[in-house]
Amino acid sequence: MDMYSGHINRLIEELAALPGVGAKSAQRMAFHIINMPQQRVERLTDAITSAKANVRYCKECYTLTDEEICPVCASVKRDHRTIMVVENVRDLAAYEKTGKYEGVYHVLHGAISPMLGIGPNDIKLKELIARLEGDVGEVIIATNSSLEGETTAMYIRKLIKPAGIRVTRIASGVPVGGDLEYIDEVTLLRALEGRTEL
Amino acid sequence: MDMYSGHINRLIEELAALPGVGAKSAQRMAFHIINMPQQRVERLTDAITSAKANVRYCKECYTLTDEEICPVCASVKRDHRTIMVVENVRDLAAYEKTGKYEGVYHVLHGAISPMLGIGPNDIKLKELIARLEGDVGEVIIATNSSLEGETTAMYIRKLIKPAGIRVTRIASGVPVGGDLEYIDEVTLLRALEGRTEL
Repeated sequence: MDMYSGHINRLIEELAALPGVGAKSAQRMAFHIINMPQQRVERLTDAITSAKANVRYCKECYTLTDEEICPVCASVKRDHRTIMVVENVRDLAAYEKTGKYEGVYHVLHGAISPMLGIGPNDIKLKELIARLEGDVGEVIIATNSSLEGETTAMYIRKLIKPAGIRVTRIASGVPVGGDLEYIDEVTLLRALEGRTEL
Repeated sequence: MDMYSGHINRLIEELAALPGVGAKSAQRMAFHIINMPQQRVERLTDAITSAKANVRYCKECYTLTDEEICPVCASVKRDHRTIMVVENVRDLAAYEKTGKYEGVYHVLHGAISPMLGIGPNDIKLKELIARLEGDVGEVIIATNSSLEGETTAMYIRKLIKPAGIRVTRIASGVPVGGDLEYIDEVTLLRALEGRTEL
């Protein structure tokens, strides 16, 4: 006999398909949602629908934003000649939270991984190359210090070094194997200061 | 400067309000949702809306179900004279998964907790008492072996023992396969007290 009703099972399945949500947490979340006031349920579904409908890639740096151009790229206070390349929006957010980085970003939305069959064309690399035709003084590669992150860093260096643009890599004050988004701000800043020529 | 757009922030906030979802996982889930195909986003919001609209309490045992009466309460194969009292639907599911319990359930939707200000009237206790006016042979109290669970068990026992109904409590002790050295002292003592003849 099925323990839950069809509607509950369907909700649990959909929730369990989200990243980092196991079967037990999906169950817990589902029961919580069912017990929420109708108004809160509507706020949740509306937040999902609106985000999906209104959020798009920034035309400059490919972060997620409500506008054509994200606030960082649109700001005249930022140094548009310095581009920090990150794997994803969470990594951008981590550096932005330090409040000390004054350049702009480029979000790759992934990293090269031969193991997972993710090649240079599967991430926003062509888009980075296209940006370098403008006035760019330095590209700071801030991919994770994982195998994929390092592979991606090396690939980008080989690709753009010949163009005569300064290419740097954030220092590995970041623990090896660590995900940028989980690292404290001090370490992130130290890694930025200690960046070296590639 | 705000790192994310308003729509993303709103989605992150709504997700972070769910139980067991921290700020980081909410971020991760939000970006995942925004990157999902439109069709999958609709399946998710529809699952939420349908579950909320169609799931209700079983009129007998107060578990969550699509019907007036849940499959367990509706089954003629179950022993309706034996009622197992559990704190929540997940606990019911845990016992149901054993496939060996043949009675029915009563879901309290909580436990008495003076600390949290949850009294007997805040859980489905009146509803349990009402059921005992029918033909009931045994009430098995399967609340958690936490302070709240034990308090609730004692309260129920006092309430219904005078009615002459058999009231039992599931055993607490060392979990099967559990290593003694990793088990807390209270559990070890309870296992000792509850020892049975071999």
